Amino acid sequence: MKALESLLKARNGSLPINVKVIFEGEEEVGGESIAEYVRKEKAKLKADFALVCDTELFAPNLPTLCVGLRGLVYTEIEAQGAKTDLHSGMYGGAAPNPFFALIEIISKLKDAKGKVLIPGFYKGVKAPSKDELKAWKRLPFNEEHYRKTEVGSKLLTGEPGFSVLYRTWARPTLEVHGMPGGFTAPGAKTVIPAKAAAKVSMRLVPNQDPDDILKKYTAYIKKLTPKGIETKIKVWSKGPACVVGTDNRYIQAATEALRDVFKKETVFIRSGGSIPIVTDFQDVLKIPSVMMGFGLPDDNLHAPNEKFHIPNFHRGIETLCLFFEKLGGK
Amino acid sequence: MKALESLLKARNGSLPINVKVIFEGEEEVGGESIAEYVRKEKAKLKADFALVCDTELFAPNLPTLCVGLRGLVYTEIEAQGAKTDLHSGMYGGAAPNPFFALIEIISKLKDAKGKVLIPGFYKGVKAPSKDELKAWKRLPFNEEHYRKTEVGSKLLTGEPGFSVLYRTWARPTLEVHGMPGGFTAPGAKTVIPAKAAAKVSMRLVPNQDPDDILKKYTAYIKKLTPKGIETKIKVWSKGPACVVGTDNRYIQAATEALRDVFKKETVFIRSGGSIPIVTDFQDVLKIPSVMMGFGLPDDNLHAPNEKFHIPNFHRGIETLCLFFEKLGGK
Repeated sequence: MKALESLLKARNGSLPINVKVIFEGEEEVGGESIAEYVRKEKAKLKADFALVCDTELFAPNLPTLCVGLRGLVYTEIEAQGAKTDLHSGMYGGAAPNPFFALIEIISKLKDAKGKVLIPGFYKGVKAPSKDELKAWKRLPFNEEHYRKTEVGSKLLTGEPGFSVLYRTWARPTLEVHGMPGGFTAPGAKTVIPAKAAAKVSMRLVPNQDPDDILKKYTAYIKKLTPKGIETKIKVWSKGPACVVGTDNRYIQAATEALRDVFKKETVFIRSGGSIPIVTDFQDVLKIPSVMMGFGLPDDNLHAPNEKFHIPNFHRGIETLCLFFEKLGGK
Repeated sequence: MKALESLLKARNGSLPINVKVIFEGEEEVGGESIAEYVRKEKAKLKADFALVCDTELFAPNLPTLCVGLRGLVYTEIEAQGAKTDLHSGMYGGAAPNPFFALIEIISKLKDAKGKVLIPGFYKGVKAPSKDELKAWKRLPFNEEHYRKTEVGSKLLTGEPGFSVLYRTWARPTLEVHGMPGGFTAPGAKTVIPAKAAAKVSMRLVPNQDPDDILKKYTAYIKKLTPKGIETKIKVWSKGPACVVGTDNRYIQAATEALRDVFKKETVFIRSGGSIPIVTDFQDVLKIPSVMMGFGLPDDNLHAPNEKFHIPNFHRGIETLCLFFEKLGGK
């Protein structure tokens, strides 16, 4: 903050707006402490808007504002069969195997094409406006290039009838992240584990209520649980989707600042990820967020060799200075 | 061996038969070294029969010989989707998830009742003789007691129409032992892993050839593998089932020795587990095995709190002395 203040002072001799800074270091593990803090320190955090930089440019030189995020419900299904681990030689053919129960359940949560099968899951899902969809079609996006260089898979998956951007930004999805339990080291061990688990999350879109989705998900899993197996559902985190309007002065000032620095018209995109604090700012502090970040699509987020493109540090600083100046009326 | 020899000498003044001892310490991880050793040292290991003690009594005071073992094919299915781990927010709805591929595949390997669905899997499966099945029905086995105290589950699973003993001793089965990959630590990480795997094994019965089963299994998995995912199958171990005839003098001497020590008629059972060395003794050394062990069904094999019932040490020693004496003609 000191650095930004000095920079602004060097440019104009003053800091054009008042700034409060709040840091979040737990977002990837649920971000519970900051959510609590925001609820507790409403007065201290009073502000006109929030600036959140946890987003990216759509392409290296394309000024971008993110105006929508998917929500998230992250769960762990725990399944128990026998009271203790058993030998598959002695008990294979008689003892229930919690891995099979999980496999049976999860195979019915989503079809092979990517459609989620939880009854009522898509009820009320709000589609993007026609204008927004049209604007997405104008974005420089090449599906084949994305498949080859970003994903690096033989094929892309997902619901038929929706574009990649639509599927990843505005359609709800369901993924399995890991299945703890049993024997996972190199080699062979013939165990029928007493317990196994699956980390399953759902990305949500506008008008899907996390609690409602969780209720439907839980009821469906209970229904799918085979006899002889007990399942419990642990919730690791939950938060709704969030779409910000583009017709407020904060978004407008950001749009102009980006355009002036990058010398191109700013585009509006959404992100498929979740930034729960944006929802908290909206619901608790009643303020909109400007999601202006300077990452790039090939940054390898949450993966080996994660990076940040150095020139974007400088353009990011310039943009922020200009953004503050525009808002401060200078 | 010295102890047994002293004991026999104390009883009779001599060791009634010649004995060669071979130790195996790798059986639970595939037992490859001993299989190689047996092939290499045929002359050194020349014998009339083998005595293997890796079996158990059917009930605490019931003298028992094991005359059949299931075979085993233990594999690991490795699935790959994207080239690197991806964030499920950004890529959920577009990137293939290898966990879903594995779940889709494995859900089609076995039906909910326990029938294996690999085409041709049951072809040629040899059923036990009517006499053997009748003898099993006379064994002191209470399914409800077994469910409650040994397995400790709400229900038993397995193919309808077969008893528990039939299912675990003489029907082939398929189990999942663990699913390495992705995020398995406590908490939440929204990763779509590039790779995931599943440890899947099959227990085989007489007339199922491990190589033939592996071929059918591999072909079926290739067929089930969804587009966009690559699967590879690693084989950790394989060995056929083995049933020993009861009409040889070694089994007969063991039957009598057990009866004399336990004061009850000896019963013949099978085991659902695999002891690959028994097959090697049969195929390579051309000798039958007497499977006379003194474990108990509640020993918690391969699980926490594994135990051995102390009185069976003493009765086991007595039985072995008498067995050797009977064979030595004294």
